[in-house]
Amino acid sequence: MKKVVTFGEIMMRLSAPLNSRFIQAGHLNITYGGGEANVVGSLAHLGIPVSHVTCFPDNDLGYAAAAFYRKYGVDTKDMVFKGDRLGLYFLEVGASMRASKIVYDRAGSAFANLDPAWFNWEEILKDAQWFHWTGITPAISASAAQACADAIRVARKLGVKVSADVNYRRNLWQYGKTVKEVMPDLIAGCDLIVCAEQDAEDILDIVPDANEANSFFSIASQVMKRFPNIKQIITTRRETLSASYNKLKGISYDQKEYLETPVYDINPIVDRIGGGDAFMAGFIYGTLHYTNGQDALTFAVAASALKHTVEADVNLATVPEIEQIMKGNTSGRLVR
Amino acid sequence: MKKVVTFGEIMMRLSAPLNSRFIQAGHLNITYGGGEANVVGSLAHLGIPVSHVTCFPDNDLGYAAAAFYRKYGVDTKDMVFKGDRLGLYFLEVGASMRASKIVYDRAGSAFANLDPAWFNWEEILKDAQWFHWTGITPAISASAAQACADAIRVARKLGVKVSADVNYRRNLWQYGKTVKEVMPDLIAGCDLIVCAEQDAEDILDIVPDANEANSFFSIASQVMKRFPNIKQIITTRRETLSASYNKLKGISYDQKEYLETPVYDINPIVDRIGGGDAFMAGFIYGTLHYTNGQDALTFAVAASALKHTVEADVNLATVPEIEQIMKGNTSGRLVR
Amino acid sequence: MKKVVTFGEIMMRLSAPLNSRFIQAGHLNITYGGGEANVVGSLAHLGIPVSHVTCFPDNDLGYAAAAFYRKYGVDTKDMVFKGDRLGLYFLEVGASMRASKIVYDRAGSAFANLDPAWFNWEEILKDAQWFHWTGITPAISASAAQACADAIRVARKLGVKVSADVNYRRNLWQYGKTVKEVMPDLIAGCDLIVCAEQDAEDILDIVPDANEANSFFSIASQVMKRFPNIKQIITTRRETLSASYNKLKGISYDQKEYLETPVYDINPIVDRIGGGDAFMAGFIYGTLHYTNGQDALTFAVAASALKHTVEADVNLATVPEIEQIMKGNTSGRLVR
Amino acid sequence: MKKVVTFGEIMMRLSAPLNSRFIQAGHLNITYGGGEANVVGSLAHLGIPVSHVTCFPDNDLGYAAAAFYRKYGVDTKDMVFKGDRLGLYFLEVGASMRASKIVYDRAGSAFANLDPAWFNWEEILKDAQWFHWTGITPAISASAAQACADAIRVARKLGVKVSADVNYRRNLWQYGKTVKEVMPDLIAGCDLIVCAEQDAEDILDIVPDANEANSFFSIASQVMKRFPNIKQIITTRRETLSASYNKLKGISYDQKEYLETPVYDINPIVDRIGGGDAFMAGFIYGTLHYTNGQDALTFAVAASALKHTVEADVNLATVPEIEQIMKGNTSGRLVR
Amino acid sequence: MKKVVTFGEIMMRLSAPLNSRFIQAGHLNITYGGGEANVVGSLAHLGIPVSHVTCFPDNDLGYAAAAFYRKYGVDTKDMVFKGDRLGLYFLEVGASMRASKIVYDRAGSAFANLDPAWFNWEEILKDAQWFHWTGITPAISASAAQACADAIRVARKLGVKVSADVNYRRNLWQYGKTVKEVMPDLIAGCDLIVCAEQDAEDILDIVPDANEANSFFSIASQVMKRFPNIKQIITTRRETLSASYNKLKGISYDQKEYLETPVYDINPIVDRIGGGDAFMAGFIYGTLHYTNGQDALTFAVAASALKHTVEADVNLATVPEIEQIMKGNTSGRLVR
Amino acid sequence: MKKVVTFGEIMMRLSAPLNSRFIQAGHLNITYGGGEANVVGSLAHLGIPVSHVTCFPDNDLGYAAAAFYRKYGVDTKDMVFKGDRLGLYFLEVGASMRASKIVYDRAGSAFANLDPAWFNWEEILKDAQWFHWTGITPAISASAAQACADAIRVARKLGVKVSADVNYRRNLWQYGKTVKEVMPDLIAGCDLIVCAEQDAEDILDIVPDANEANSFFSIASQVMKRFPNIKQIITTRRETLSASYNKLKGISYDQKEYLETPVYDINPIVDRIGGGDAFMAGFIYGTLHYTNGQDALTFAVAASALKHTVEADVNLATVPEIEQIMKGNTSGRLVR
Repeated sequence: MKKVVTFGEIMMRLSAPLNSRFIQAGHLNITYGGGEANVVGSLAHLGIPVSHVTCFPDNDLGYAAAAFYRKYGVDTKDMVFKGDRLGLYFLEVGASMRASKIVYDRAGSAFANLDPAWFNWEEILKDAQWFHWTGITPAISASAAQACADAIRVARKLGVKVSADVNYRRNLWQYGKTVKEVMPDLIAGCDLIVCAEQDAEDILDIVPDANEANSFFSIASQVMKRFPNIKQIITTRRETLSASYNKLKGISYDQKEYLETPVYDINPIVDRIGGGDAFMAGFIYGTLHYTNGQDALTFAVAASALKHTVEADVNLATVPEIEQIMKGNTSGRLVR
Repeated sequence: MKKVVTFGEIMMRLSAPLNSRFIQAGHLNITYGGGEANVVGSLAHLGIPVSHVTCFPDNDLGYAAAAFYRKYGVDTKDMVFKGDRLGLYFLEVGASMRASKIVYDRAGSAFANLDPAWFNWEEILKDAQWFHWTGITPAISASAAQACADAIRVARKLGVKVSADVNYRRNLWQYGKTVKEVMPDLIAGCDLIVCAEQDAEDILDIVPDANEANSFFSIASQVMKRFPNIKQIITTRRETLSASYNKLKGISYDQKEYLETPVYDINPIVDRIGGGDAFMAGFIYGTLHYTNGQDALTFAVAASALKHTVEADVNLATVPEIEQIMKGNTSGRLVR
Repeated sequence: MKKVVTFGEIMMRLSAPLNSRFIQAGHLNITYGGGEANVVGSLAHLGIPVSHVTCFPDNDLGYAAAAFYRKYGVDTKDMVFKGDRLGLYFLEVGASMRASKIVYDRAGSAFANLDPAWFNWEEILKDAQWFHWTGITPAISASAAQACADAIRVARKLGVKVSADVNYRRNLWQYGKTVKEVMPDLIAGCDLIVCAEQDAEDILDIVPDANEANSFFSIASQVMKRFPNIKQIITTRRETLSASYNKLKGISYDQKEYLETPVYDINPIVDRIGGGDAFMAGFIYGTLHYTNGQDALTFAVAASALKHTVEADVNLATVPEIEQIMKGNTSGRLVR
Repeated sequence: MKKVVTFGEIMMRLSAPLNSRFIQAGHLNITYGGGEANVVGSLAHLGIPVSHVTCFPDNDLGYAAAAFYRKYGVDTKDMVFKGDRLGLYFLEVGASMRASKIVYDRAGSAFANLDPAWFNWEEILKDAQWFHWTGITPAISASAAQACADAIRVARKLGVKVSADVNYRRNLWQYGKTVKEVMPDLIAGCDLIVCAEQDAEDILDIVPDANEANSFFSIASQVMKRFPNIKQIITTRRETLSASYNKLKGISYDQKEYLETPVYDINPIVDRIGGGDAFMAGFIYGTLHYTNGQDALTFAVAASALKHTVEADVNLATVPEIEQIMKGNTSGRLVR
Repeated sequence: MKKVVTFGEIMMRLSAPLNSRFIQAGHLNITYGGGEANVVGSLAHLGIPVSHVTCFPDNDLGYAAAAFYRKYGVDTKDMVFKGDRLGLYFLEVGASMRASKIVYDRAGSAFANLDPAWFNWEEILKDAQWFHWTGITPAISASAAQACADAIRVARKLGVKVSADVNYRRNLWQYGKTVKEVMPDLIAGCDLIVCAEQDAEDILDIVPDANEANSFFSIASQVMKRFPNIKQIITTRRETLSASYNKLKGISYDQKEYLETPVYDINPIVDRIGGGDAFMAGFIYGTLHYTNGQDALTFAVAASALKHTVEADVNLATVPEIEQIMKGNTSGRLVR
Repeated sequence: MKKVVTFGEIMMRLSAPLNSRFIQAGHLNITYGGGEANVVGSLAHLGIPVSHVTCFPDNDLGYAAAAFYRKYGVDTKDMVFKGDRLGLYFLEVGASMRASKIVYDRAGSAFANLDPAWFNWEEILKDAQWFHWTGITPAISASAAQACADAIRVARKLGVKVSADVNYRRNLWQYGKTVKEVMPDLIAGCDLIVCAEQDAEDILDIVPDANEANSFFSIASQVMKRFPNIKQIITTRRETLSASYNKLKGISYDQKEYLETPVYDINPIVDRIGGGDAFMAGFIYGTLHYTNGQDALTFAVAASALKHTVEADVNLATVPEIEQIMKGNTSGRLVR
């Protein structure tokens, strides 16, 4: 099988243990995460050949970050070891009505300061079938946006499918360009996007048609009209009852049908971070393995639901586990 | 008070911390467990004199396993230290819709390879009032089944009450005999068994009478008819809402009355392993301390419910705590 | 802003990790707590200048206890280092129907054996605006009760507002006086008390008037009639569904209006200890920052609810976090 | 084999992890220790039947302490569960020139307040061959001293050998009697004592004869002259190069010969606490197993040396390991 | 007593546990450190009133860092909460021939980007008797160097004694000025400096006179000639036998006498970081408490030696402990 | 660069934390190791392309083991997932005179029961330059020995260099053949072996010539005479002063010159396991990077010495670190 390739920053995640607050913590647990790398980390665990492209500083922290993804089966040969520092994020895990809290410390990272010339996309993508990126990458720096644009261009040229989680992060976009100046051109190169109503408004100024009962259908239709390459738009609907209890379903529109999955109850949540990336990974897997769009979407949401029960950013649920959830077996009965 | 004696394999349990998956774990927590030893471990904690009979390898791991049960008050003098290895099981703890998962590594254990001649049951059972075994033991090996048969025979001869949790484990029974060839003769020696409908079918080919609304009553009646020594059959009804939330009640039929307990909500579950063994221990305690069958059964289920809030295989709930639950005080209000 | 001062014992809290029982624990987590110190610890975290008055043994354990509160911003200059030992309490954390359990080991502590002459209240309270104590302090020893009486007297003289959580603890009061002999005189010096119906009966022999539907209103009215200094009585209503799930609201009567807050669902509870102290701290903060009694009370309950999601005795919720809860934003959505 | 019985207080030991200071510690590791219980704990591990007599409070902490010794094979049936609190000691582990530091918190313990009538020594000692006590017990309280005297008296009457580690602890002896008033009568009942020159002076006012080159021989001779029951006096010589590096040898005088062992280098020390108790346990084992006094003494010191490499108070070295050291095999070569 | 004030960056220190390498670590232990803050942290522990001046980002990490120093008694009221990020350093702890390794991640920190106008030195230093800085501060950024110059100027004006550890760090000094351009003017304002031969050469181009046998005396004389305010120069001599074993002594020249201390063996080293800062703190304490220069210097080295046995950057040795070492009692014998 | 390939069993290593004994341990730390895999693990860390060939059970434990080596850069594509169980070894870490202790639990492992037909050596070795095996593999089972013979044969055919650490393990060789029956044929296929005098005697009945002063030279000459393919024999000389302190040097004879390295002091030892494998890995690296045999050998011993300061079986020292040791810089001075 040809590989799936992602591009984006990987940060060291330093989380206060259990539910402790930063001021209480005597140590911080280490894992690593990034919205794009999480997708291929999850896919590798599902048995798909994958590679991730990123930059790390040429120091022990960068090597450790690469080793983390290599452990889970991600090919690290296209990672570049240059630049000054590893981006970090600090995480405090909430419970009940107390929200989890992230303090980002990613300014000045090796990735933010990358040189687009470091990446030979023709070479990187030559054995790929799918390239995935997210709205975080072009939000980091002009050079990251440029590298992303290069990758999309080469992917299209080579016939590699392109997807994006458009994901608008308000507190990024500090480098002088706005999301509305940068993202539309990148989105235009995609075959598939993850995009909710709020993203459509924030990024594309597209709002639901007041006459259309299904707001997602409405924005999806408009987006596809504007960006003819896009054949399918998917997203999740999350009901956040508390930091410990969420409900989740997936929805999709692909110009032919509007699909919804069952709603999954997640209670308690072990780790909510990476839930969206697990959805995307599940969707890629589902698209590659099922002939039926409904199955692909349900696989994606079931994968995402299971991710919430797994610590750290990468989804370590297996195909048989996800398929049990798809079949409605959510009872969590002990497997001996 | 005369002692309660059990016979069966004890394994080292190695569990990934918190909800981590095996591939993530940097260490494994150690405890020990076995379906029969858990019963006497729990009984010792309730103040009943007990002894457990088993085999361990004559090495540091065997000594540590024995020490674990000795700590909780189990007499270890009839344990035999011979053979090659300690059986192990690896545990991953699920949450929400993700099931807990056990990887067994018990093949070739000292217990599996035991020689029935190592056990002088006349001596072992001479001060006993109750002998308990489970369907796991005869499933392990021919020699384990033989030792179990010996113990039952001697117990009956000495007037020691015999109970069994018949417990059919599909992935054991690898040694050339089937459950249906071996178990009926052993069950025939029991005064009391734990047996659910599925067990009755799997082990005894007994299915509920379609005309009888109460399926448990139906199978219990048939079992007792076939095995005249058996005076009472009990079991639990577990509703598995998720890996974190179960509901539990107990039922019993003793030829005179059919009993049920209230349903207990267990949310969240701290550790589900050993829940059935805690029920059996609670039932033995209850039978020895209450004149009333309903109280004995309710004590058993209350004990089992509390077990789910205690880490590791052995129930460390105390008599006063269990009696609070029996009285309906399940509010968990802080005890200062 | 002038400071808030509290007086009372601080104990080392030694808690078994996660949900383990004492007999299982290989280590005990350290924190420190005391019903009064928790109030100023929480207030310091909210940005209020505070000082706590207590006694510690002149040894490394006493210094560590003081350092703990100093870390959170509590002024420790009026702490006295004399006497024999640090009071301790051992905590086992329950779950579901299993209650958390405290074993106190505070007899003979430096605080219990204090000499009231060690405290120069004129000096201690000269920059204070508020003095808070609880019913635990006079329950510990005659000398502690005397020091408390001294503090109240000086506070009134200096125009410092006095509040108390009257908090009747049945297993204290071992020194020869009863709660009914000691507390009324101390309560008489208060401007504000936390007092539920049961406390009113246990301490003051005041019971709700059978003709009055609102029992709290009834006892509050009677208390205020008997103690004319008291202008407001507040308390919380806690519904204990399990050790893991409580519901909480606050109520108040201030001679003008009877107030209630919304009910907050707390599920799961991370640490229930100190919930009442967080309510009191929240109420002091609210009173000092809001013109509106309802806001002050809602802030107090919201603070208390959040405390249940924070480990250890001191509430480490921040003002913005509490205000989100006040506004009804209890969804716990991830803060990036 | 008949059993060895000891009598004395057991404390919970709470040690700051690794080399951290109390003020830094986020948790304290739990173990249990007592100068006499450590002797039988070690002996049990060496395969000798043993029992320890003590008092614990009738609470979860007392049960946990008993369970700890039961785990290692100590018979706990003569332990009494009465009284108020469990004695504690807090330990900080030094390194290099920084000494380890203990903060005792044992005042008012169940043991200190014991009633001598609780112990039926005729019954307790009926199957014993050896009774061992230390100078700590009579230093705790008058009632503890009385119980110790009772035990010695009954032991002599029953022909049970009596030994003591006379061990003068300056900061005990707070109850109104001095060591010199109490100890001589107790020592008079011993067959064997551990006693160094400083102890002889502090307790018995015996100082080495200036004309005798071997000061130990000198004081041992005088002690034996004064106490005719005493047939042998032993002790260790410890050279404390640093908290991490000690040298150790054993010496003995038994009216016939003066014996010395080789000097053992211990570097690094893992845990120095209980080193003397391991020596005593080793000496009892050695006396019971070797015909040769030199072997018994060397076994004792080798056992003590190995204890310094084992965490916690009880020596968990095995007979084969100790015998390797006796043979001079101190290279610590990996055992596969 | 008037306070000692320091100025400099504080970083979060994230250290891999035990001797693990970064790539192996599952978590990182948190402490905080900075060459100047460590001095006042240590002094606070010795009972000296102190304040530290720094900048932190206005986020939870900054608050936690401040709380850490507040815990140990450092006044944090002059800390400024502005700017983007907290400087970090990652530490791997070596052993034997493997060196400990630090990865700095301090670029772009709140401190590096400080505005000198944020600090009102007249106010900050008004109750001070001593101001201490190090060569790290002016190496960080032009604005940090400016603030340091401001502080020195005001200190001199107010008659506050000024000291510096001149400490040349080759991999700082990235902002366009060299150490030789900046440091001489700052050194000129000092009364006392820590300066070794290599520093004198790197910073001041001063090399020992080839005719002078005592190279330290030679460079100290030249430095004092060039900077007439400087009355004393001190330093340590460290012999690094391995990462686990160092020898240390102190030397001083004060225009009157050349002093040396005994050499202290440190084996094993628990934590070498902050050893020089502990020396400086010890010297300040010694100068304030002893009339004798030799005692002050010996106290300083004894303090530093003990620091190597304490985890984290701040020296938590006490005055009595240090005085024991001064007296030559380095045997580390257990303190009960 | 062409890759280095190894073949052999990988076990899960479960080690008691710090210096605790098995009976004390509450958890076991996980790592993985195998005499051959450790070589390629170390080489991968040094930047050499490598692959390891082995069998794992097709379960979560097997996947975790593979992931561990993949993390460090070992190609896992030729690993086979078949069979019943993962081999384990339990490790207790000694100190001072107490030896570390291993309890093996590898019987019945997937590797022991492998089918030689699972491995297509032509394919596996087609891009290799070096194949390394050890005497452990043929000691495990007849099929493992056969697979090893196959690999050696194919390697020779393809011109791949073959090396072996002949390593006689007395307690393996349980399958009916002796070391002397099996090993000579395998050794005959090697270009290079690690072999000490004792191995030569145990495996080949070769003893040093009494007339030859250099016993290693003597046995090496005889071995090479008997096995003409062997061009070089190397080994280490280890002086085991204690479990914490060893001295190490390397020696070599290659028909032209006899070489020795300096002796390295290792004190304290962090983890001795894998020291020999690190030597072999260092020698392979050295041979591939240095033209000089002395440098290759010194690199190997320096690498091995550093391994002793690194936890777990795989050497995580880097090339620059090893080269510092080669240059004699063993002071362990802090690297900032």
